Amino acid sequence: MKKFEEKTISSEVIYDGKVVHLKVDDVVLPDGKTAKREIIDHPGAVAIIPITKDNKIVFVEQYRKPLEKSLIEIPAGKLEVGEDPEETAIRELEEETGYTTKDLSFVTSFYTSPGFANERMYIYITDTLELVDQPIAGDEDEFISIRKLTLEEAKQLVEQEEIHDAKTNYAILYLHALGMK
Amino acid sequence: MKKFEEKTISSEVIYDGKVVHLKVDDVVLPDGKTAKREIIDHPGAVAIIPITKDNKIVFVEQYRKPLEKSLIEIPAGKLEVGEDPEETAIRELEEETGYTTKDLSFVTSFYTSPGFANERMYIYITDTLELVDQPIAGDEDEFISIRKLTLEEAKQLVEQEEIHDAKTNYAILYLHALGMK
Repeated sequence: MKKFEEKTISSEVIYDGKVVHLKVDDVVLPDGKTAKREIIDHPGAVAIIPITKDNKIVFVEQYRKPLEKSLIEIPAGKLEVGEDPEETAIRELEEETGYTTKDLSFVTSFYTSPGFANERMYIYITDTLELVDQPIAGDEDEFISIRKLTLEEAKQLVEQEEIHDAKTNYAILYLHALGMK
Repeated sequence: MKKFEEKTISSEVIYDGKVVHLKVDDVVLPDGKTAKREIIDHPGAVAIIPITKDNKIVFVEQYRKPLEKSLIEIPAGKLEVGEDPEETAIRELEEETGYTTKDLSFVTSFYTSPGFANERMYIYITDTLELVDQPIAGDEDEFISIRKLTLEEAKQLVEQEEIHDAKTNYAILYLHALGMK
């Protein structure tokens, strides 16, 4: 849908970093006036809900510099250019948890913050996990620990705001709605 | 929690815009190495799930320049500095839909994209809406139309990716889990 379309007059790249690519567009609004739109260009991301044979969810804990605290999240990572989201999901699962899977199901996708960013998050689920003997290494600036939790334990961590991000809160509500015990 | 804390050595402001504030921090990692962290500083945002007396959800449709398409979303807006999230919710509800309420319930909050942004989204729900005679005006560069939909209609729009953002997908799953018909 293109309702209320804003046509671009000019676009300026402000910053071209490792994760964040910022541009500012001048646009024409539906009433003919002009405005500036600040936009974060993002390759997209993938998250995976890994369920173990004994019915626990595999989370990763990591420090999130923008929040100045660590969060417990489902495994996730950025799409590489041209990569299929399922490939990304399987790669990130192995890098972050040491598990792999041959059987992913798509749960949903959503834009995380459509007002200023085009980051699209794809979420998958699997309950057929296999341990990898020598898992591929993750990024060298990522420090991660694994937490295996029941859904009830995870819900308590939502209350305590140790689980506190869009994809993970969605995942927990999704498992709750599925009737997971 | 401060597990795997990354200590800031220096911080540089790259861009200070209307919505996006970008800084790049040099940090010391837990292993003593250094890394750069690109961070979007955001005041936080609020969204509200408005339910009418005839059991419809009030959505707003607007063009999202970062996606180059329009989305159907629950009403939402940025926190002003020092503003209480409930105040923001009531203001944005009136600006975007012409309704007000005296009775908000907190649903959840989450960080939308904790890898690169500190935007925290607060979600509220109300089923006691009153039409305002002369609602306060919204931002002059916002073009919005209202859509009142049943939960079933909203679920179809999720399938069609016309509803396609974190807060709104969460809201629909939340209403589904509550057993709304």
